[in-house]
Amino acid sequence: MSTQLQAARKGEITDVIRYAAKREPIGAEAIARELAAGRLVIPANKNHLAGKLKPCAIGRAVTTKINANIGASPLDSDDITELHKLEVALKHGADAVMDLSTGGDVDRCRCNLIEHSTVPLGTVPLYEMIIHKPVEELTYDDILTTCCKQAKQGVDFFTIHAGVLREHLPLLDSRIAGIVSRGGSLLAHWMKHHNKQNPFYDVFDDLCDIMVEYDVCFSLGDGLRPGCLADATDEAQIAELRTLGELTRRAWDRGCQVMVEGPGHVPFNQIAYNMKIQKEICAGAPFYVLGPLVTDVAPGYDHITSAIGATAAAYYGASFLCYVTPREHLGLPTLDDVRQGVIAYRIAAHAADVALGLPGARDWDDDVSRARADLDWQKHLCLSLDPETARRMHDEKKLADTDHCTMCGKDWCSVRLSKRLRQPTA
Amino acid sequence: MSTQLQAARKGEITDVIRYAAKREPIGAEAIARELAAGRLVIPANKNHLAGKLKPCAIGRAVTTKINANIGASPLDSDDITELHKLEVALKHGADAVMDLSTGGDVDRCRCNLIEHSTVPLGTVPLYEMIIHKPVEELTYDDILTTCCKQAKQGVDFFTIHAGVLREHLPLLDSRIAGIVSRGGSLLAHWMKHHNKQNPFYDVFDDLCDIMVEYDVCFSLGDGLRPGCLADATDEAQIAELRTLGELTRRAWDRGCQVMVEGPGHVPFNQIAYNMKIQKEICAGAPFYVLGPLVTDVAPGYDHITSAIGATAAAYYGASFLCYVTPREHLGLPTLDDVRQGVIAYRIAAHAADVALGLPGARDWDDDVSRARADLDWQKHLCLSLDPETARRMHDEKKLADTDHCTMCGKDWCSVRLSKRLRQPTA
Repeated sequence: MSTQLQAARKGEITDVIRYAAKREPIGAEAIARELAAGRLVIPANKNHLAGKLKPCAIGRAVTTKINANIGASPLDSDDITELHKLEVALKHGADAVMDLSTGGDVDRCRCNLIEHSTVPLGTVPLYEMIIHKPVEELTYDDILTTCCKQAKQGVDFFTIHAGVLREHLPLLDSRIAGIVSRGGSLLAHWMKHHNKQNPFYDVFDDLCDIMVEYDVCFSLGDGLRPGCLADATDEAQIAELRTLGELTRRAWDRGCQVMVEGPGHVPFNQIAYNMKIQKEICAGAPFYVLGPLVTDVAPGYDHITSAIGATAAAYYGASFLCYVTPREHLGLPTLDDVRQGVIAYRIAAHAADVALGLPGARDWDDDVSRARADLDWQKHLCLSLDPETARRMHDEKKLADTDHCTMCGKDWCSVRLSKRLRQPTA
Repeated sequence: MSTQLQAARKGEITDVIRYAAKREPIGAEAIARELAAGRLVIPANKNHLAGKLKPCAIGRAVTTKINANIGASPLDSDDITELHKLEVALKHGADAVMDLSTGGDVDRCRCNLIEHSTVPLGTVPLYEMIIHKPVEELTYDDILTTCCKQAKQGVDFFTIHAGVLREHLPLLDSRIAGIVSRGGSLLAHWMKHHNKQNPFYDVFDDLCDIMVEYDVCFSLGDGLRPGCLADATDEAQIAELRTLGELTRRAWDRGCQVMVEGPGHVPFNQIAYNMKIQKEICAGAPFYVLGPLVTDVAPGYDHITSAIGATAAAYYGASFLCYVTPREHLGLPTLDDVRQGVIAYRIAAHAADVALGLPGARDWDDDVSRARADLDWQKHLCLSLDPETARRMHDEKKLADTDHCTMCGKDWCSVRLSKRLRQPTA
């Protein structure tokens, strides 16, 4: 059996492609062409496909997708809570989830999540490899064994930090925030301790064989992503990106699907350039970005600081947005943080799709606006991104009548006034 | 006595200019030059200056400023609650507030707010003119009398919807959302009823005399601003903008300070163009925008949909951002909505200032990032935009130690790992 990439290269339109095409503005044939060119992925592990997975496509030719990071830490949460987070993420419209667990029974948590997830599930396999030992004891065999196990369990995409090379580490000296990627910082320790190259880089070809066997999609991790505005677009980041470009081609040669991960923290004016350079260096492989946050000053509101950057990123070149929750930098997200993160990112993704002129993208906005202009509250609330929240806010003040709200009241409602203006004079 | 504009034209550096310069990256002389050119305003009513007002400058050469709309509606709130909203807005860093009251004792509310406000206060005088009668009964005399009274009370800037002309109304036929500005829709009714030109347009020169006397700054209202993405950048909007450009010059000729108001709802890809065309048509007069919202689908989250647009607007040309709260389209904002709106807009304004490379703008980010990289939680939380919220989120989980958080826990904390990497090997 072949991967979706291999099938598409042969001109085959698989059922997976056909399914993914249903929700897109382009047809299955166009999706297959984008897949074959490496500009689009459909993360769909064969074993997850046998379960609940409803495959979706990620790439510039289709709608922007969003990912919700969940997973327990050694200090917080457990596998039942994480299942609830999955439910919240799915309910509000996450297109993918990542289980980043580093605490609790990580194996059970992952298997539960895969079993219940209708969307692609990603992991960072490195975490499981060192959960009970110091990173220095990580072996080449650990990498292949754990990746093989998780692939068999049905994980749809792996973040693999194979691009952080020994040669890049001296480039970090001038940074304010150093390495903020867990994977990146752990592997930097390993390289420093052993005085050897990144072990993921060294076993990369063997890893590709595992990825191909189950059709796990690569998400080439940016271990050196900037962790603050001052470090954005620096030499270390770009040096790693060049390695990710090389790895993209190596993985493609072996038939693997590939996405590339990106920042992080980037000033608003540097976002377009970051998207452009990734496209060039990685030959159009889908860009999967974390935000980026456009300011470092607002812990507690990083779903907002990063939704601003994510909108610009998706407009200028990203295909897949990893959410950031309000609790980023402060603690593990709660259920409500997951909800807020997913909603902020659905806003970002949709705003970018509209701005890009994706066929049909603005229809939703127009429908909401028509209901609003008609003062049809039921329809207005019902069509909105989060009907429960909108309805609660609207209903809180019982003073409001059915055809206006407490913002202006009846006589001052511009929508009422505007509606009257349109009526022919009696 | 002359207006700040008239003084600056004479090359005078007033105390007001000197005060406003203290918080800016440019000096008093440069501010005076920008003022004289019409590219910057300092809304500072002589009578408010005699009270608590601490003047601030609005323009492209200085930091981006934000406004919080408050004010009671006939269905909700009262003048005491509105004073509390003022406190919340000031506490979180609003640079200006507008009292948009259309209910309760509007005169008392306004006077209270002026008395307690350390930031410029704006109003839409039209509201008071028709609070006890239908708009059709509005007279030319009402306009001048009410504006004169409010100017004497110390209002620093007036939104004057003088740009909606009779000729523009047929251009609205193809719109989904019609007129969403209260002022715009009320004046459209007046024009339709009387079959006459906009009365604010007709008395504009007399209005200028009042504005000059107290140095009230014009905020030329965009009564035809788009109320949904579909209506953005349409003929009606641009036609009104041309009239606002004409009025800008007329007001300048009479020595008035002028800002111009802008949208509203604009797709992300049209924001740069909207900023550019305003600069051209209005000869560089500061642009005061409401968001814009980059999607219509998320009532309940319009502080986010609009902070995205506001960041782009401030980056591409706006100088003054009017906040939008989560309750926009649903009801009158509560105290907490005011807080959320102000914070979202401080993020937008600051992110744009950083992106524009304003001298010193990124220092704050760098300070937060250094504290974060040092795992100095006290400093990190203390320096953040909303220390109370950040501290609450961090402290909620008592499991966390002083030098890491529940997001990763101690052993997995990339910041700890990165800090260790920097230490010389023992």
